[in-house]
Amino acid sequence: MAIQFNEYYNGRTGLTIGLKQLLFSKQSDYQLVEVFETDTWGNLMTIDGMVMLSQRDEFVYHEMISHIAMFTHPNPQRVLIIGGGDGGTAREVLKHPGVTHVDLVEIDKTVVDASRKYFPGVGNFDNPKLRILHDDGIAFVKNVDTPYDIIIIDGSDPVGPAEGLFKKSFYEDCHEALTADGVLTAQTESPWVESYHHSMKNLFSALDNLFPVSKMYLSFIPLYPAGMWSMACASKKEDPVSDAVITRVEQGMETLGGLNYYNREIHTGCFAIPNFVSDIFKP
Amino acid sequence: MAIQFNEYYNGRTGLTIGLKQLLFSKQSDYQLVEVFETDTWGNLMTIDGMVMLSQRDEFVYHEMISHIAMFTHPNPQRVLIIGGGDGGTAREVLKHPGVTHVDLVEIDKTVVDASRKYFPGVGNFDNPKLRILHDDGIAFVKNVDTPYDIIIIDGSDPVGPAEGLFKKSFYEDCHEALTADGVLTAQTESPWVESYHHSMKNLFSALDNLFPVSKMYLSFIPLYPAGMWSMACASKKEDPVSDAVITRVEQGMETLGGLNYYNREIHTGCFAIPNFVSDIFKP
Repeated sequence: MAIQFNEYYNGRTGLTIGLKQLLFSKQSDYQLVEVFETDTWGNLMTIDGMVMLSQRDEFVYHEMISHIAMFTHPNPQRVLIIGGGDGGTAREVLKHPGVTHVDLVEIDKTVVDASRKYFPGVGNFDNPKLRILHDDGIAFVKNVDTPYDIIIIDGSDPVGPAEGLFKKSFYEDCHEALTADGVLTAQTESPWVESYHHSMKNLFSALDNLFPVSKMYLSFIPLYPAGMWSMACASKKEDPVSDAVITRVEQGMETLGGLNYYNREIHTGCFAIPNFVSDIFKP
Repeated sequence: MAIQFNEYYNGRTGLTIGLKQLLFSKQSDYQLVEVFETDTWGNLMTIDGMVMLSQRDEFVYHEMISHIAMFTHPNPQRVLIIGGGDGGTAREVLKHPGVTHVDLVEIDKTVVDASRKYFPGVGNFDNPKLRILHDDGIAFVKNVDTPYDIIIIDGSDPVGPAEGLFKKSFYEDCHEALTADGVLTAQTESPWVESYHHSMKNLFSALDNLFPVSKMYLSFIPLYPAGMWSMACASKKEDPVSDAVITRVEQGMETLGGLNYYNREIHTGCFAIPNFVSDIFKP
C-alpha cells in the first residue's frame, strides 16, 4: 500500500498524510470506507478517498457543527443528525443536559461499524437517548411526525450519496421538520475549493429563502481541503449571535465539560467572513 | 524536477502543490530561494523548502499582518518592516494615507529581486515613501534613531536566519524602537506545528512582559502548514479591539481600496482563539 494518503482539491494541490498501515477497507453499497493508522494523527477515516476525520483533529469539526446550533435554540430537546455516522456530532449534542432524544440517520452502517471499532471515544453510540437509523436522510426528512428542535446535516462532499444534501427540496423538508424556533446546521465545504462553489451557492440560497436568519461560519480544520471549512447556521427565530444567545453560551459553557475548540469568543468570531468568501455569493 | 512540491509539518503530513516548472533557484548567502510556476496558485516562492507566498493566496497573509496594527495605532506615519522582502506587507501598509515613511529591512536581496521579477504587483517597491535596506533586522533595531509607530516582523520560520526573530532580546530592542503609542505585529507560526511551540511561547512571553497589551490572532492561509496561522499584536497603548480602534476601522476601511480578506468583522473575529491553542500557553 501507499505510505502516504493524498487528497487533492485544486489541480494537484492538496493534503498529504503519512500512513503506518491500512486497518480497514470496505466497498459498501454506497461508498468506499477506509481506515488508516497515520504517523501523527491517530486513525484516519476516508470515504471515496476524501478525509472524514482523524482521532487527533475530529474535535474541531464535531464541536463546531454542534454547539453553535445547540446554543442558538433556547431549549433543544429533540435533535436529528443526517449523516454523522462516526458518532462525533451525537457525542457533542448529548453533552447538552436538556437533550432528551437524538435520531442519527446514517445511510451506511459500514461507517458506524468502522467508527465503533477504530475510533473508540468518538461516538457515544450506547447512550440511551440516541437512536441510530440506517436510512436515507433525504427520504427520512420527508416523513417526520414529531418535529425536531435541531437538525444537523453532517454529510460528506456533494458527490455520490451526499449530493442530495445540497439541494433546495431537501432544505424545504428540513424546514418543515423543525419546530417553530428550530435551528439547522450544515457542513458547506471549503471556500477555497472552486468546484463546490455551485453547490454552496445553491445551499445558502435555499436557506436564505426558507429561514429569517441564515449565516455562514468558519472553522480551522487541518485535514480538510485548505484547512478552512464553512458551515451554515439557519434559524427560524433567534439569531446565533444575538445577546440572548451569547448569554446562554456564557451560562451553559461550563456544563458541557472540556471542549478543545469551541468557546464564547469562537461562537461570535467564527461568523467573521473574509471578503473573498463573501464574494463567492455575489451575483 | 519534481512535478509536486511538498512541505511536511507533522511527520509525513503536509501540503502538496502541483508544479508546472521551476522558474528560479538560487542559494544566496543566507538561504535557498526558489520560485515555481504552479498549476493553480500562480507563482510560488519557497525558502529552504518552506512556502513563503503564492500569487493567489498572498493577500491573506499580507492584509492580516498589516491592517490590524495599522488601525490599532491612532495615526501611523513611520513603519518598520523586518523581513518581508517580497514587498506584500509594504504594499498593504502604504495603502494607509497617513504613512510618510516605510523602512523595509530584508537581509536577503535575492528575495526582493525574485519578487520583483516573478511576483509583479505583490511588491510596491518603487513607492517614494519606501526605503529598502539589505541589512540584518536584529542588528538594525538595536540602532534606531527616530522611533517607529509600527514595527512588523515578517520573517520566516524560527530556523536559519529568522531564528533570532523569536528571541526576547530582539523584542526588547523593538519595544525601545517604538513610539509611545507604538504597535508591533509578528508572524508566530501555526498552532498545529508542535515543533514550533517552544519558539511561540518564548515570543509571546517576551511580548507579555514588555507591552501592556499583547494578543494572538489567527488567519486562514491555505498554503501554510495546517492552513491556520497565528500572529501577535502587541501595543504600548491601545487595545486592538477597543471601541476607539473599531471606530477607526469603520471610518478608515473605505480609503484602503479593495481588500480581499480583512474587514471590520475579521478585525475582531480573528482574536477568537480555540481552546487547544490557548492550552499551548498554559504553564
